[in-house]
Amino acid sequence: MKKILNTPESFVDDMLEGIYSAHSDMVKCVDTDLRCYVTNRSKEGKVALATGGGSGHLPLFLGYVGEGMLDGCAVGGVFQSPSSMQIFEVTKEIDNGAGVIYIYGNYTGDIMNFDMAGEMAEMEDIEVRTVIGMDDVASAPKDETEKRRGVAGIFFVFKCAGAAAEAMMSIDEVERIAKKAGENVGTMGIALSPCIIPEVGKPGFEIADGMMAVGMGIHGEPGIRESKLATSDEIVAEIIDVITKDLSIERGDEVSILINGLGSTPKEELYVMFNSAQKILKEKGVKIHRPYVGEYATAMEMTGASISLLKLDKELKDLVDRSANTPFFVQK
Amino acid sequence: MKKILNTPESFVDDMLEGIYSAHSDMVKCVDTDLRCYVTNRSKEGKVALATGGGSGHLPLFLGYVGEGMLDGCAVGGVFQSPSSMQIFEVTKEIDNGAGVIYIYGNYTGDIMNFDMAGEMAEMEDIEVRTVIGMDDVASAPKDETEKRRGVAGIFFVFKCAGAAAEAMMSIDEVERIAKKAGENVGTMGIALSPCIIPEVGKPGFEIADGMMAVGMGIHGEPGIRESKLATSDEIVAEIIDVITKDLSIERGDEVSILINGLGSTPKEELYVMFNSAQKILKEKGVKIHRPYVGEYATAMEMTGASISLLKLDKELKDLVDRSANTPFFVQK
Repeated sequence: MKKILNTPESFVDDMLEGIYSAHSDMVKCVDTDLRCYVTNRSKEGKVALATGGGSGHLPLFLGYVGEGMLDGCAVGGVFQSPSSMQIFEVTKEIDNGAGVIYIYGNYTGDIMNFDMAGEMAEMEDIEVRTVIGMDDVASAPKDETEKRRGVAGIFFVFKCAGAAAEAMMSIDEVERIAKKAGENVGTMGIALSPCIIPEVGKPGFEIADGMMAVGMGIHGEPGIRESKLATSDEIVAEIIDVITKDLSIERGDEVSILINGLGSTPKEELYVMFNSAQKILKEKGVKIHRPYVGEYATAMEMTGASISLLKLDKELKDLVDRSANTPFFVQK
Repeated sequence: MKKILNTPESFVDDMLEGIYSAHSDMVKCVDTDLRCYVTNRSKEGKVALATGGGSGHLPLFLGYVGEGMLDGCAVGGVFQSPSSMQIFEVTKEIDNGAGVIYIYGNYTGDIMNFDMAGEMAEMEDIEVRTVIGMDDVASAPKDETEKRRGVAGIFFVFKCAGAAAEAMMSIDEVERIAKKAGENVGTMGIALSPCIIPEVGKPGFEIADGMMAVGMGIHGEPGIRESKLATSDEIVAEIIDVITKDLSIERGDEVSILINGLGSTPKEELYVMFNSAQKILKEKGVKIHRPYVGEYATAMEMTGASISLLKLDKELKDLVDRSANTPFFVQK
């Protein structure tokens, strides 16, 4: 296991202590529970946004807590759901009196625990709404969207909803925008190598050298097929084809794009992929508004990448463009 | 070879086209030579800073071209030096009439080509100064500093010199500051797995599972030893011990720290290392001023990490703190 750590058991807490220490000007934990991660800021009357999920996906989830983005995050073990109590503690801490919206990925454990936390919060008169990210177009067909996994595209939901909340919009408005962003974003990825959960110590699956797993999830969930590793142009063409059809993105439309590295894929390769994407979208007559290229939602040291497209209108474009400032994501 | 690309031969140019396309608001190439990478901005009378080196280290080198950092970069093939003509073209393009300072890593090919370019520039009445990064404390003893390789610590030289140039200091002053930052920064790293140059297709060396190469360079240059992979606390303690001795960092001193991932090491592990570092430095009575944790100078998909310490005084601290805005590095 090629990992730098102290013990597998202390891995998540050591990481969290490191983050709190490095970014004490921006984030803190609730009381002494490292897993309850919240912003240092508070803004009376601002709708608060909470997320949560398993560790091992940095910058997802906790990396997006900060100005113009989210207010808190309940942190689980590697690839494990946070507890409902932790979500509840985060909820109480971040509420500014205008209610809290939960935005997280479509995984059974997370749904159960967020729902329980929401019920506890309602009993304390905190209004809670829920928007679930289900952007992975490879994980279920369009008519079964509710079965789709949440992956890197949730970044755009955080970005748009975060900008709306920062602009002091009402909870109805922020919820509407989060849902709208979620409905207009699609993601698909490929994986070239597995990753290792520290406490397990060996990969849960293998991908043969020279092969790629098309549509694989960020915890190694099976994709739609395994096939010979194709070129960047071929991979990107297939992904963009699937997403543009899924979201009915047509000639004349405008999109924001995220080329996301899963962990071990060098930035050089992500820009090769972006170059493929910009050529393909240009041919399709689709304009790229604001590209993001880098690691936004990883799966530890998995090799591979995903592409997310957000179909823009004037409202979403304006929200994507607003500034943000978190320990892991700064936009001027 | 688990790489997403079109052909190994087009890898660097495809990447560069992707970067120019994604960040056309900030960077451009000189005429049609993709390898001559320069900022879009020009500021009459500002000292211009140029760097250059092999590809495969993103964000190093070209990722640091932008506001508050560098003005241009000559881009070589993967792990290859750029040509003297390309460096010369960059020099002419970025000169604002106040001279150009070359800041690059201590590698024979780079030195030869930068020196030739500098001579060509002098013939065109462009004043050129040179500051060479040699921060890798593991690559040669203190009394043979001129043999040391330049690695991730060059980021701090870019940062301080870039801030000084942005503040419209004279070429003498910016050169003095670049040298001062270079003399006060030290780096040491460990590698856990090799990387593959696309045109070669297989690793040039191996590191056995469960082993680490201590002090290995970012092109796989041999380190000071191979030994059993230690814990984060042990690795970080050894590195900090070596660097603090080398730079005479003592109780009461203040440092900026960079925990740099070499490519495949997850951000989670880098924060585990930062947590080790902050505990160890606290014990030593050394204060951390502004930590950087992430990928700043990579070696393609190499697994491993390096730590750089910059010994601060009031002047360097102020320069480190100033804002910067490049496609790969934003500091508010």
